[in-house]
Amino acid sequence: MKGYHFELSFEVRDYECDIQGVVNNAVYMNYLEHARHELLKAIGYDFAALNRENILPMVYKAELEYKKSLVSGDDFSVKIRVEKEGLLKAVFFQDIIKSNSDLILKAKITAVVIANGKPISPDQFLEPVYKLKQN
Amino acid sequence: MKGYHFELSFEVRDYECDIQGVVNNAVYMNYLEHARHELLKAIGYDFAALNRENILPMVYKAELEYKKSLVSGDDFSVKIRVEKEGLLKAVFFQDIIKSNSDLILKAKITAVVIANGKPISPDQFLEPVYKLKQN
Amino acid sequence: MKGYHFELSFEVRDYECDIQGVVNNAVYMNYLEHARHELLKAIGYDFAALNRENILPMVYKAELEYKKSLVSGDDFSVKIRVEKEGLLKAVFFQDIIKSNSDLILKAKITAVVIANGKPISPDQFLEPVYKLKQN
Amino acid sequence: MKGYHFELSFEVRDYECDIQGVVNNAVYMNYLEHARHELLKAIGYDFAALNRENILPMVYKAELEYKKSLVSGDDFSVKIRVEKEGLLKAVFFQDIIKSNSDLILKAKITAVVIANGKPISPDQFLEPVYKLKQN
Repeated sequence: MKGYHFELSFEVRDYECDIQGVVNNAVYMNYLEHARHELLKAIGYDFAALNRENILPMVYKAELEYKKSLVSGDDFSVKIRVEKEGLLKAVFFQDIIKSNSDLILKAKITAVVIANGKPISPDQFLEPVYKLKQN
Repeated sequence: MKGYHFELSFEVRDYECDIQGVVNNAVYMNYLEHARHELLKAIGYDFAALNRENILPMVYKAELEYKKSLVSGDDFSVKIRVEKEGLLKAVFFQDIIKSNSDLILKAKITAVVIANGKPISPDQFLEPVYKLKQN
Repeated sequence: MKGYHFELSFEVRDYECDIQGVVNNAVYMNYLEHARHELLKAIGYDFAALNRENILPMVYKAELEYKKSLVSGDDFSVKIRVEKEGLLKAVFFQDIIKSNSDLILKAKITAVVIANGKPISPDQFLEPVYKLKQN
Repeated sequence: MKGYHFELSFEVRDYECDIQGVVNNAVYMNYLEHARHELLKAIGYDFAALNRENILPMVYKAELEYKKSLVSGDDFSVKIRVEKEGLLKAVFFQDIIKSNSDLILKAKITAVVIANGKPISPDQFLEPVYKLKQN
């Protein structure tokens, strides 16, 4: 079993829960995005600054499997493993795991990097991630 | 009783409702903002385009009185009357009214317009609003 | 090419756009959910009422392909075709299409229905959908 | 100058920023709500559990003064001082302060507690808050 390159802790906020009393499906996309952007920060990049330089990381495909629900007050973490796919795609395997070890959601997010309108290799972002200590 | 300059119809979406089964308090700010931006459009301005030109309408103060709750499926409208306050402030009196005429929320939103870092008169926006047919 | 069972029109609201100036990836999940709930209404069901009766439609898997971005002011519609998978799964093929016919997003949302803690057949929901006039 | 009863630290998440590149006005309501709910937890109450017992804390009035904007990556805290108003109202004075001490937003949130459809005294919530160490 391959390890994770990055992990970020969260706590469910009540405004993220919906009529069913659970975290709304769309909110998981927010959690996943925030964890990816914090991973960027961990390797010295800033999402907002990249955008100002016209380097746009874009989600190309998102695949999410909802296993269990999170509810008000739950503590959880988003764990990320990164791989390259083909020449241009960065793949983020992201698992959301509750503090009691329950698997909540498995996601595979495929992204590309568009610089001045053209796709570029994601290597400058992937290589420093590979060097992060894995858990 | 003075009339409204503008009105926009909405329907509650389920993802806007929270644990209590009612529209979350923060979501009303979204409704109010969207109605103000559509009012801008009605007089020929576009919020995103203004920002690209460095003309930034900014909310300065927001006062909201929550009267009743909206729930899943409710139809409602946001009605707006606009006034000027002092030399630099535009005031939006915004009422949210359910299709059965229940008053849901009364808001007073005070905004200023910042152009290239300095406040400018809101007159270019207010004058065309005053000419809209009132209801 | 098989037709759609349902279609719902939307307009991008400015608060749905993010730092990149485009609709945030997570917001598409809101659009897709709202369209599914409106489809439920079109066949005489109400999502909030179902939940009160402990009949919980749950998303099991979400697969989204982002083709192009929506920006401030764009008009678009969410089109839905429904199919059954196995005995217990309802699959929603949902396409987001801009008013100029650009394909923005293709989604496949797989859902199950949990009644009092156990999965039940989705047939009572699927059969009336199949009878809707296809476009 | 009177002190604060409670303080909660946050960091801006990119999905909370809008077209203007700053935290959207509505998102501050989320921050303020989350801080109030965490204050409830600090005195041994749980918002979701209260709702299940039909004890509904409801916002009655919200007054927000926007002083400066938060942007991507900013660290800030929400500080709360609580007072009683009349017999039935709990008032939350909430200041949002950036890590560099800039005042971002001043809010006064007035709430009531509805138990089984009727307003009740907020004293059971206020008295334990008054005992929290002030800063």
